[in-house]
Amino acid sequence: MDNERLSRARAAMAAAGIDALVCRLPENVLLLSGHWPLNGLSFLLFPRDGSPLIIVPHCDEIEARDELWEAECRTFVHGVLTAGDAYAEIGSHLKAASAGKRWTRVGIEASFESVAPPWNAAEIAIPASATRAMLERAFGADALVDATALLMDLRSRKTPGEVAKLRAANEIAAFGLAAFTENVDIGVTGVELAAAVESEVMVRGTGYKGTRRARAFAQVATGRQETSVAYRPMEISTNRKLGNGETALLELAVVADGFWADRTRPRVAGVASSRTRELFDVVLRAQDAAIRTVAPGASTGEVDRAARSVINDAGFTAKEFLHVTGHSLGLRYHEPVPLIVPGGTTELEEGMVHTVEPGVYIAGTGGMRIEDNVAVTADGAEVLGPAPRALDG
Amino acid sequence: MDNERLSRARAAMAAAGIDALVCRLPENVLLLSGHWPLNGLSFLLFPRDGSPLIIVPHCDEIEARDELWEAECRTFVHGVLTAGDAYAEIGSHLKAASAGKRWTRVGIEASFESVAPPWNAAEIAIPASATRAMLERAFGADALVDATALLMDLRSRKTPGEVAKLRAANEIAAFGLAAFTENVDIGVTGVELAAAVESEVMVRGTGYKGTRRARAFAQVATGRQETSVAYRPMEISTNRKLGNGETALLELAVVADGFWADRTRPRVAGVASSRTRELFDVVLRAQDAAIRTVAPGASTGEVDRAARSVINDAGFTAKEFLHVTGHSLGLRYHEPVPLIVPGGTTELEEGMVHTVEPGVYIAGTGGMRIEDNVAVTADGAEVLGPAPRALDG
Repeated sequence: MDNERLSRARAAMAAAGIDALVCRLPENVLLLSGHWPLNGLSFLLFPRDGSPLIIVPHCDEIEARDELWEAECRTFVHGVLTAGDAYAEIGSHLKAASAGKRWTRVGIEASFESVAPPWNAAEIAIPASATRAMLERAFGADALVDATALLMDLRSRKTPGEVAKLRAANEIAAFGLAAFTENVDIGVTGVELAAAVESEVMVRGTGYKGTRRARAFAQVATGRQETSVAYRPMEISTNRKLGNGETALLELAVVADGFWADRTRPRVAGVASSRTRELFDVVLRAQDAAIRTVAPGASTGEVDRAARSVINDAGFTAKEFLHVTGHSLGLRYHEPVPLIVPGGTTELEEGMVHTVEPGVYIAGTGGMRIEDNVAVTADGAEVLGPAPRALDG
Repeated sequence: MDNERLSRARAAMAAAGIDALVCRLPENVLLLSGHWPLNGLSFLLFPRDGSPLIIVPHCDEIEARDELWEAECRTFVHGVLTAGDAYAEIGSHLKAASAGKRWTRVGIEASFESVAPPWNAAEIAIPASATRAMLERAFGADALVDATALLMDLRSRKTPGEVAKLRAANEIAAFGLAAFTENVDIGVTGVELAAAVESEVMVRGTGYKGTRRARAFAQVATGRQETSVAYRPMEISTNRKLGNGETALLELAVVADGFWADRTRPRVAGVASSRTRELFDVVLRAQDAAIRTVAPGASTGEVDRAARSVINDAGFTAKEFLHVTGHSLGLRYHEPVPLIVPGGTTELEEGMVHTVEPGVYIAGTGGMRIEDNVAVTADGAEVLGPAPRALDG
């Protein structure tokens, strides 16, 4: 049980005058209960005082009870012929739990416009008008307040337990990076590389340090044109074959029991040109410079400047290094705080976890990025799940 | 361009008195524009009269223009340092497009509580309070009406063009089923099988009949305990090794350019027991019986009864065949109409596409399901992407 997480949550609720939180996004249910829902239909009622209540599909009860720290666990019948009206049942449980509590402010997930998928990412349950109506019936419309900012503020500083989970996710991601390194070769395609990476993460990640569920989402750009636009948040792998001297660029998201890693590696098939080596060296030095700057009290702007200076000194500008140096992550692939950007004034704090991902993209020549995840420690940065950074060899 | 889809949409809008639709869920943007968004941030304005407008992240413009049927395409800067306030920009485009139009009813996606992921399922953009506020500013709060039912009704009957896409998705899924068949063996684990299936779908599916983006989400239950609960909507593959005579049960979702397939196959490692063969035979006959019943005018209850009778005659009840015989699908893994259930009164119509997936699950013995997707044709059913159904051999 992550007591540190629970006490921080309760302190934030007290400061905001929130009597209870109701979460159903898997990322927030996991944050406050220890259970990573299978499908996004598990509702957690987390009161400031007293024990949490979780209501889960009956078919997920075994996994929920295995993972939950402490919560009364109720179920509703789901996915079979005898299923009733899930929201009516969930609403009744919530209403009963709030009876006599005189809660006037119940925090809900009203502003999550970007969400992590549940375990099975092929279909996602999200809160829309039916969820809202059910919560209004359970607590009264006037009691509902948006707790999105409170939840994201809590998530910006990870507990030691959460950092340990992110370390494991990154160690699993490193299995995928190794598979990428082994498989890049002349004649291999982007989809073949992406598939090899995803396979390795699922097979070696499941069971690793007790991980129950692991999956990767890999994209591999190949060659000049594809890598030159590989700054895009959403890449597309193709069946284009790698030629001699061409770069493959892996963008890798890994989720392990609900905790995310976000890594990138470039790798050359055959013999790299001196220009490609030069770009790689710039990006490598930029990443090292940024990581050396990470420490409690450093501003996000300083970390960004460390990376950007190396890249600028090599003759490039924000036209080539056109994205952020880093972003937060943890219970989602991307989280908002801290954001490592030019002029950023947020001070890093111990427990923050963010990417360091300098990149250079040149139309006609290609693109290059190296990305790792670091946890801010008492005296610097820990690179989570460290993995070789080598263009070839 | 799917003119049939566009004219059906406009007729439904006329009947409902809807002046324009605004969609941003990838499944609905694809339905009405031909473009499958990469990340859920593309907004489609589809007026009843006049040309559609789509607003996409600048980095997705090439894919959008390649795929769009006909729509004015505007962009906003996204994912780089020069990005502004996306919703302010999108809102301005929407407001400008509606100027002088006197629209009093603009349909929005207010009640989608279950959504398909965009291409990169690792993170999903969804409509929450900021989207709602942006739409209210663009069109006025009073003009917004919930078009969820209208959209889902349109989706319940596929056009010939959409059936062709679903055929291709199922042919790609069949590559995954073949990989499963080839890989099931004593000592192999559920995660190894799931990874092999997903790899095959991505590698062989990309480029198949012009498919740009293909991915699978596979789950494989192994052995008595795991397969006995494999009726669950969300399965978990483990690293348990298959023993001689044990069943592996693959639940497979495939997406190809935004169109979904949903298939299931059981397969035995080594030598199957006579009891396992008997269960397989019952489920196989139940599926055949249901498929023979599918035709325009048949009720969903008749189709369900055809499958259920075979299973009941073998001595089982709804305790063992505890889920629906089928559900609709198309632009999502699961769609609501038609639902093939006991007592169902919906009449099947040409162009409907649904699963046929009888199953039997027995605590202590294990579970078994065979699932394929059928399109209702003028005189019966077409099994999409047919694939062998064999327990072993």
